[in-house]
Amino acid sequence: MGDSLGKFFTITSFGESHSRCVGIIVGGCPAGLAITEEDIQSEVDRRKPGAGMGATRRVEEDVVEILSGVFNGRTTGAPMCLLAWNKDVDSSEYEKVRFLPRPGHADYTAFMKYGGFNDFRGGGRFSGRITAPFVMAGAVAKKLLNLVGIEVLAHTVEIGGIKAEPKGFDEIRKNVEKNSVRCADPKAAQAMSRAIEKVGQEGDSIGGVIECVAVNVPVGLGEPVFDTLEGDLAKGLFAIPAVKGVEFGSGFSSAEKRGSENNDAFIIRNGRIVTVTNNAGGILGGISNGMPIVGRVAIKPTPSVAKVQETVNVQNMEGDSLEIRGRHDVCIVPRVVPVVEAMTEVILCDFAMRAGIIPGVLK
Amino acid sequence: MGDSLGKFFTITSFGESHSRCVGIIVGGCPAGLAITEEDIQSEVDRRKPGAGMGATRRVEEDVVEILSGVFNGRTTGAPMCLLAWNKDVDSSEYEKVRFLPRPGHADYTAFMKYGGFNDFRGGGRFSGRITAPFVMAGAVAKKLLNLVGIEVLAHTVEIGGIKAEPKGFDEIRKNVEKNSVRCADPKAAQAMSRAIEKVGQEGDSIGGVIECVAVNVPVGLGEPVFDTLEGDLAKGLFAIPAVKGVEFGSGFSSAEKRGSENNDAFIIRNGRIVTVTNNAGGILGGISNGMPIVGRVAIKPTPSVAKVQETVNVQNMEGDSLEIRGRHDVCIVPRVVPVVEAMTEVILCDFAMRAGIIPGVLK
Amino acid sequence: MGDSLGKFFTITSFGESHSRCVGIIVGGCPAGLAITEEDIQSEVDRRKPGAGMGATRRVEEDVVEILSGVFNGRTTGAPMCLLAWNKDVDSSEYEKVRFLPRPGHADYTAFMKYGGFNDFRGGGRFSGRITAPFVMAGAVAKKLLNLVGIEVLAHTVEIGGIKAEPKGFDEIRKNVEKNSVRCADPKAAQAMSRAIEKVGQEGDSIGGVIECVAVNVPVGLGEPVFDTLEGDLAKGLFAIPAVKGVEFGSGFSSAEKRGSENNDAFIIRNGRIVTVTNNAGGILGGISNGMPIVGRVAIKPTPSVAKVQETVNVQNMEGDSLEIRGRHDVCIVPRVVPVVEAMTEVILCDFAMRAGIIPGVLK
Amino acid sequence: MGDSLGKFFTITSFGESHSRCVGIIVGGCPAGLAITEEDIQSEVDRRKPGAGMGATRRVEEDVVEILSGVFNGRTTGAPMCLLAWNKDVDSSEYEKVRFLPRPGHADYTAFMKYGGFNDFRGGGRFSGRITAPFVMAGAVAKKLLNLVGIEVLAHTVEIGGIKAEPKGFDEIRKNVEKNSVRCADPKAAQAMSRAIEKVGQEGDSIGGVIECVAVNVPVGLGEPVFDTLEGDLAKGLFAIPAVKGVEFGSGFSSAEKRGSENNDAFIIRNGRIVTVTNNAGGILGGISNGMPIVGRVAIKPTPSVAKVQETVNVQNMEGDSLEIRGRHDVCIVPRVVPVVEAMTEVILCDFAMRAGIIPGVLK
Repeated sequence: MGDSLGKFFTITSFGESHSRCVGIIVGGCPAGLAITEEDIQSEVDRRKPGAGMGATRRVEEDVVEILSGVFNGRTTGAPMCLLAWNKDVDSSEYEKVRFLPRPGHADYTAFMKYGGFNDFRGGGRFSGRITAPFVMAGAVAKKLLNLVGIEVLAHTVEIGGIKAEPKGFDEIRKNVEKNSVRCADPKAAQAMSRAIEKVGQEGDSIGGVIECVAVNVPVGLGEPVFDTLEGDLAKGLFAIPAVKGVEFGSGFSSAEKRGSENNDAFIIRNGRIVTVTNNAGGILGGISNGMPIVGRVAIKPTPSVAKVQETVNVQNMEGDSLEIRGRHDVCIVPRVVPVVEAMTEVILCDFAMRAGIIPGVLK
Repeated sequence: MGDSLGKFFTITSFGESHSRCVGIIVGGCPAGLAITEEDIQSEVDRRKPGAGMGATRRVEEDVVEILSGVFNGRTTGAPMCLLAWNKDVDSSEYEKVRFLPRPGHADYTAFMKYGGFNDFRGGGRFSGRITAPFVMAGAVAKKLLNLVGIEVLAHTVEIGGIKAEPKGFDEIRKNVEKNSVRCADPKAAQAMSRAIEKVGQEGDSIGGVIECVAVNVPVGLGEPVFDTLEGDLAKGLFAIPAVKGVEFGSGFSSAEKRGSENNDAFIIRNGRIVTVTNNAGGILGGISNGMPIVGRVAIKPTPSVAKVQETVNVQNMEGDSLEIRGRHDVCIVPRVVPVVEAMTEVILCDFAMRAGIIPGVLK
Repeated sequence: MGDSLGKFFTITSFGESHSRCVGIIVGGCPAGLAITEEDIQSEVDRRKPGAGMGATRRVEEDVVEILSGVFNGRTTGAPMCLLAWNKDVDSSEYEKVRFLPRPGHADYTAFMKYGGFNDFRGGGRFSGRITAPFVMAGAVAKKLLNLVGIEVLAHTVEIGGIKAEPKGFDEIRKNVEKNSVRCADPKAAQAMSRAIEKVGQEGDSIGGVIECVAVNVPVGLGEPVFDTLEGDLAKGLFAIPAVKGVEFGSGFSSAEKRGSENNDAFIIRNGRIVTVTNNAGGILGGISNGMPIVGRVAIKPTPSVAKVQETVNVQNMEGDSLEIRGRHDVCIVPRVVPVVEAMTEVILCDFAMRAGIIPGVLK
Repeated sequence: MGDSLGKFFTITSFGESHSRCVGIIVGGCPAGLAITEEDIQSEVDRRKPGAGMGATRRVEEDVVEILSGVFNGRTTGAPMCLLAWNKDVDSSEYEKVRFLPRPGHADYTAFMKYGGFNDFRGGGRFSGRITAPFVMAGAVAKKLLNLVGIEVLAHTVEIGGIKAEPKGFDEIRKNVEKNSVRCADPKAAQAMSRAIEKVGQEGDSIGGVIECVAVNVPVGLGEPVFDTLEGDLAKGLFAIPAVKGVEFGSGFSSAEKRGSENNDAFIIRNGRIVTVTNNAGGILGGISNGMPIVGRVAIKPTPSVAKVQETVNVQNMEGDSLEIRGRHDVCIVPRVVPVVEAMTEVILCDFAMRAGIIPGVLK
């Protein structure tokens, strides 16, 4: 219960931080899509801890394997099992703190919900590691979306209070992979990197905001009243650990706007109906309106900080404290960028298939 | 497709602004719940246009009828059909602007998605009117939640840039229905009312932020990795027209926080594990942690403003303009408060049933 | 939970035998379908107790009302609420036998599952009456299927051991409504009628078998491995009270056949690939193969018989007996024929939409 | 789409006959269940081609691996990935007949539905091999059901027209694994074996009927009106290749019975309400009534026969013929017995969890 997402293009997640592997079943992919392990690998590699500042010390090779659903280099219409083996597993230190839930992590809720049977090593099922398979599924969705011209890009727009200047889609595409924080504004990127370095030296962590933009999305994706584009995107995005907020278009800032200001006037440009502004983030009534889909997610600071924290021993119910020594990122935001992109692609792909825009069989 | 929500406690929405009725099917409600039409009516009445400022001129009686699923004053275990007849329907003015989509509304996307067959009168399926049945379902959920001690309250925390001071749960409960903007901070409420009045006089509209708090939620609700508490609440809340953002706990502000600051330390209080702060908004790893669930939704300003707006005639594809003369609210926020509360209750009720906290049959 | 069926073209059932109405929400119907209450009424009328032998004395007008989802005579893309009011309700006699479950009925299981809160009048939620709305949904599906050339016909092939001779599709179409038992073999029909009369005079009841045939179904409907055409049709058909078996093609008789005999050889006829025989009932691997879909359902004899039956008083847990005096059919088979047809249409329509054969918007 | 089954206890199937593996994701399994690969292996081994007559020559070791969801010998609450690697793969001969669909197999429908991209080797996704993972999931469900006293047994009741005498549950349990046809009637078993031998010598194949019985099922499983026990069991069972019919209790034979004969009278025995007969197969109104659940499935004769068969070349659309030389079983029925048992266990387990009979966490 709760392991699957999507109606047409579906994903079913499995694996834990220290189980034998992490993986995903991708169902409903049209037959005939040319795809290789390399195609998927290149996306998954983007999620790896970079050479940059503040990255985790854990090094997984995360070699993608396609176990089913592909034959002679093309999808067969059968579900794809995609996975990466967990190789670099050192679980000794987790045993020691088994009964000391780390503040900000899911240790406490997992312990309570699963009666202490949860695999607590490395956060188990709640580890950021389960997002590597999200990216695998996203790589499949990306190929499908590209076939119909839809392109999705995520990028960092804020880290620790430092905000990037708004950039156009082409500039985002050009810049986003050029710096370790995945920010399309080079100047802000530098400031963000310095902030991360400083915070890391203090043994602390820092959060941020990721924006995701999808262009060339046709009018009509979304199935209101409940399967709205915003609602299903949000549901998918909240499955990414550390996400605590999702907004579209002018989002929370619309609370401060007037209607006359926030409404996007319709005009005709190049024979197509477009809006002058895009405060709606490309979505009206839960349905895409042909403008770029623009969403933003709030990423909380990594809960793993190198400071003594107050906690409770859940076994003997006594107050205690802990100091996290394990591997962790000072700022997870740059690594979450490809995950946000992937999840957006998965959801858009599902809606595009529901709408018949991506056919059931490719030629 | 897209008309149902929930797994155990399910709702299926139907009806359009000017169809014969708006209604909802509530499935999975445990047998044996004492409930009357009056119980539901009193909640639905909260959603009505108030005597307050800036309210729509349309007056519906919204008399709730229970057509099935209740026998001798108790639920039978069968689905409940709840509805209100649409009586006060004046659709003449809509015909005139049929091909002129109103900016900010779903007219354009509905027209395109449904090939022009959508019922365009009063926004049709995309009208705020479909939220009256959401409140009916919420009234059922509220009774179920109350049986296990869970209480949910929504209240206005921001309108047009005016922010309320944070208030405790008891104060919210005491104050929220005392002013027409449903704000627990009386001083801010006054300022909000004045702002609405002023904006209305200018023929404009204004948005805001609603907070929703649920107390006494036991640890363990939520079914990660995809059916997270945040994700399913967000999906439900985005089904409410005008919602453009959803956040939990410190939400978007966590982007500016340090981990050491944002983490909620665990301590023992009265023999129970609690957290000192509640930046997590009561949710860790997508699962409730026993602290109050705190979410906030951004409500965009009502798109209906009494100003000339630029639009396009979708029939002849020529630029045009319109001036909306129909009924509308200057600020929809206060009327959305009970809807946010209801939707939160529906989702929490579903999770409480999945977790076995609310049983399948009541005694 | 359990009130909805379908993925694209969905139905959500509500109502009980003596609640205010019985109805159904039809979701996912393409926008632009021309449909009237009369279209639906004519199908529902087929389910009414005929002038024929052995029919129930209860007379409902079953006037179909469309409450939503249709505007200017065409579907809008929004869910349709279809219902019929329950008018002729005499529930006095049910109170007397409230605690005496009738053998073969769902009284006992409903009482136990819903803690005695179930609406026991007339079988409540388990009454055959809830199938009237199934037929309403079927009427919508029928129109959609007809648009793409698919035609579905159900007919009685066995009543009380009397078996009809196999008939071609055209003959079934011509004959099925010509006799009160809805059997395409006129000679068998007469024998069936006589059998029903005789059994009725003895105060007993009798069952039968209904066959359902769908022609012009394109190759490719069905979504294995779990959403097979057989599996989803069977699930839908078992929702009809009194159905105790479902088979396709040679079905149970294939247990006695050799592979060389049961296999359907492929040949080319009129430029199309067809099979010489149709032991597969038009389904291979859970997917339609272009041949007629042929299914059969076993209908148990009506449990309401005018004989003293042994039962147990569930209140005082003492053995007791009862004699059913209420309204009942000696043989329900002829009235179930349009229900089997309707349910088959609903499921096929859902699969045709999933396969993109029926588009999301009609022109 | 179509790869998952179940609401609480869910299974997601993946793998093809000649892909790298066949496997299944089991979701919703309560945390705390003690389970090992050996527990699952012993069930999967029952599905292997026996030493008996008429078995396939393909020998897979089918070594079960648990890749996730189990930690320290107990389930963690996270989804379990269970699989077996495909080792013994000889696909050369399939290439030759790629465009010649075998009668009775899914080759034709798979080719058409997936545009020729389907993995045609060994039947690909439509191979009986995908049922090995069904048995893995069944092994998990079996352990859960046993914890609450529910026991499920399948056995062969007919092969090629030879019918077994009815046997009591204890006798079935004692006898079923004692002969190669898995028939609880030793005399019939001998005749069946001889029939298989004879048919095999003739290069032909033969079908049969499998009965499945579940005892100690509490009253109340099933979620009408659509998620009936019969409907969901049938849907699951039709996912097993070769199943062409499903019936419960007196099933198709009820068509020949009178109501007075078919009704099961209620009496009290040992303080519990039971029925004197069990023509309902333990299900009334789609809900278990506390009596043994009794279902039967029709298994068509294996389509692979060693005779020349007429077919069509789908590439050049010319009539052709083929002679299947690959591996195949003369009678698949005995090997399907554990699959029917497993699928029944999976579905019952899902319903038991929905009803709260199996808790979310085991102690």
